[in-house]
Amino acid sequence: MHRIYNFSAGPAVLPVEVLEEIQRDLVALPGVGMSILEISHRSKTFESILAQAEADVRTLAGVPSNYRVLFLQGGASLQFSMVPMNLLDPDGTADYIDSGSWADKAAKEARKVGGVNIAASTKADGYARIPAQADLVLSPGAAYVHMTSNNTIEGTQYAQLPDVGDRRLVSDASSDLFSRPIDVSRHALIYAGAQKNLGPAGVTVVIIRDDLLGRSIAKKASLPTMLNYAVHAENRSLYNTPPSFAVYALGLVMKWLIRTGGLAALADVNARKAARLYAEIDRSGFYRGVAQPGSRSAMNVTFRLPTEQLETLFVKESTASGLDGLKGHRSVGGMRASLYNAFPEAGVDALVAFMREFERTRG
Amino acid sequence: MHRIYNFSAGPAVLPVEVLEEIQRDLVALPGVGMSILEISHRSKTFESILAQAEADVRTLAGVPSNYRVLFLQGGASLQFSMVPMNLLDPDGTADYIDSGSWADKAAKEARKVGGVNIAASTKADGYARIPAQADLVLSPGAAYVHMTSNNTIEGTQYAQLPDVGDRRLVSDASSDLFSRPIDVSRHALIYAGAQKNLGPAGVTVVIIRDDLLGRSIAKKASLPTMLNYAVHAENRSLYNTPPSFAVYALGLVMKWLIRTGGLAALADVNARKAARLYAEIDRSGFYRGVAQPGSRSAMNVTFRLPTEQLETLFVKESTASGLDGLKGHRSVGGMRASLYNAFPEAGVDALVAFMREFERTRG
Repeated sequence: MHRIYNFSAGPAVLPVEVLEEIQRDLVALPGVGMSILEISHRSKTFESILAQAEADVRTLAGVPSNYRVLFLQGGASLQFSMVPMNLLDPDGTADYIDSGSWADKAAKEARKVGGVNIAASTKADGYARIPAQADLVLSPGAAYVHMTSNNTIEGTQYAQLPDVGDRRLVSDASSDLFSRPIDVSRHALIYAGAQKNLGPAGVTVVIIRDDLLGRSIAKKASLPTMLNYAVHAENRSLYNTPPSFAVYALGLVMKWLIRTGGLAALADVNARKAARLYAEIDRSGFYRGVAQPGSRSAMNVTFRLPTEQLETLFVKESTASGLDGLKGHRSVGGMRASLYNAFPEAGVDALVAFMREFERTRG
Repeated sequence: MHRIYNFSAGPAVLPVEVLEEIQRDLVALPGVGMSILEISHRSKTFESILAQAEADVRTLAGVPSNYRVLFLQGGASLQFSMVPMNLLDPDGTADYIDSGSWADKAAKEARKVGGVNIAASTKADGYARIPAQADLVLSPGAAYVHMTSNNTIEGTQYAQLPDVGDRRLVSDASSDLFSRPIDVSRHALIYAGAQKNLGPAGVTVVIIRDDLLGRSIAKKASLPTMLNYAVHAENRSLYNTPPSFAVYALGLVMKWLIRTGGLAALADVNARKAARLYAEIDRSGFYRGVAQPGSRSAMNVTFRLPTEQLETLFVKESTASGLDGLKGHRSVGGMRASLYNAFPEAGVDALVAFMREFERTRG
């Protein structure tokens, strides 16, 4: 089995141990005689898989008991609509912190539902930094404040949560959830597509505080049932057929994260991987980081080369060397190295070695 | 590897050949060096997997060129909302044929969007039959007519499509799509969750006629982006991260269906499997079919025993004999044997043998 280093921004690298476990049991789960791809979502086997995945999410992140953990479909993009449809009135206002391309998309969907106040924006800076606390202009009666904890495209990340007073904080944590400790209790709602740090594409994790469900309950007669958080909470993510394989795989990743030492240990490894790469960028003068130093992401490291021609060559030659997925998003250009939980430290070493050799021969 | 007979209504049995192929390539796709669970949805590898799955759907069902094939998330339950949100005006009316529990749910979601006319209902008959053509009272200006081609819970199925004149026919074909030939050109829109005949849970197939997209294009500013058919059509199911593994697995099932001889050949096998089981039910006098003979489903065979006590015993003993998932839906009671494409004929023989022995010893 030949495997290469996968720097993709998502879907992204998964732990080999997890892949091997999925492979081993793929045709028939031990003691069940059927594949995870075939079993009824109403079976005891699947109910137990789902309950265990939820329990492990709770253990891993220390989710308080007044929060529900939901496994939904549609990715962060569907959450962009579900959040305002459940939490925002047509004549109400929600605050959106515009820290990147995905934050902007989230705000656009909210505008279809109610009022949106852009509490701060770093668009004029090319989203190269996270808005500072002093930049925030929050509305007095905001339904919630929406933030994007890690900006996958631009490669910026909050070092600490913004202070939003007693307002409800809603966080799109798609690209850094469970890559470091998270204080769930400071959030009203957290959502994340699984395909970065949590598992394969096809399942979305939502962690929602109990008291937010009241509005959704009241809206049952008007809101599409599948977009109603209360319906999913009441049915423990089994209102309809869930993406059962993706939930199973996410559960195995949760077990792996716990075995690996939990979020604090992961944060150390992730910080070390990112620091090694940023150090190389800062050392060289040939490579140039996109994000401003205080806003740098440990998940997505974005950098440019002196010319676009060299960037094209870099992508081509790194791919040929078994370093896959380094091409940056077209809106930023250059390179992007995504270093999620399952990305091995040896892969960072391989990239640094490649960068040095590239600079030596092409610089 | 011990495998048992899986009569589950969905997620349901998959072809062993397909499971073995998924297993073989799970850790690293040949020539790619990464798992299907890890590769970017923007990679050439995945784009080719998606394009091939679409091409095979088109080949298999003879999908005309003026129809789009979309791979979405959320199952039929989300389509219950997407269909009216895209096709029905608040002051318009859609006709719904109420042929079962899922048809009823679909109509309930449509009422949140606009007017609903129940064109026919067999609810008073316990949904034991498909409404006859003569029962249909269609609205003159209906936005569309919604039908459920196979009623999974009750075990009834349309033998032929209803005649709806020049109205748009929308069909929830979740539990019989690609189990027999289908005349796509008589439909405006067909949708199906994959987890019966098409693949694992987590992906929904939508086949939509081009001219329906105009309304969705006009609604881009108001409709949630993820619920807009035109957005998914323009982006060829890659607007956001798709459920890539489920699309891949569905593609392998499509290849298997084509290898097996296509829809006409499958229909023959499926009819033979169902006929064998219905013949046993009709022969016995001990077992009693739920669906009326002219409305019987080839996919879900529902039957009762003389007493609920015997039914409980039947479930227990059949499960112990390696016949899994025979318990009927609580709203119907009794037994339900789901005989989807991948369910083997030997499994029907095993069930018939079990039924005879059960009748002999317990009857």
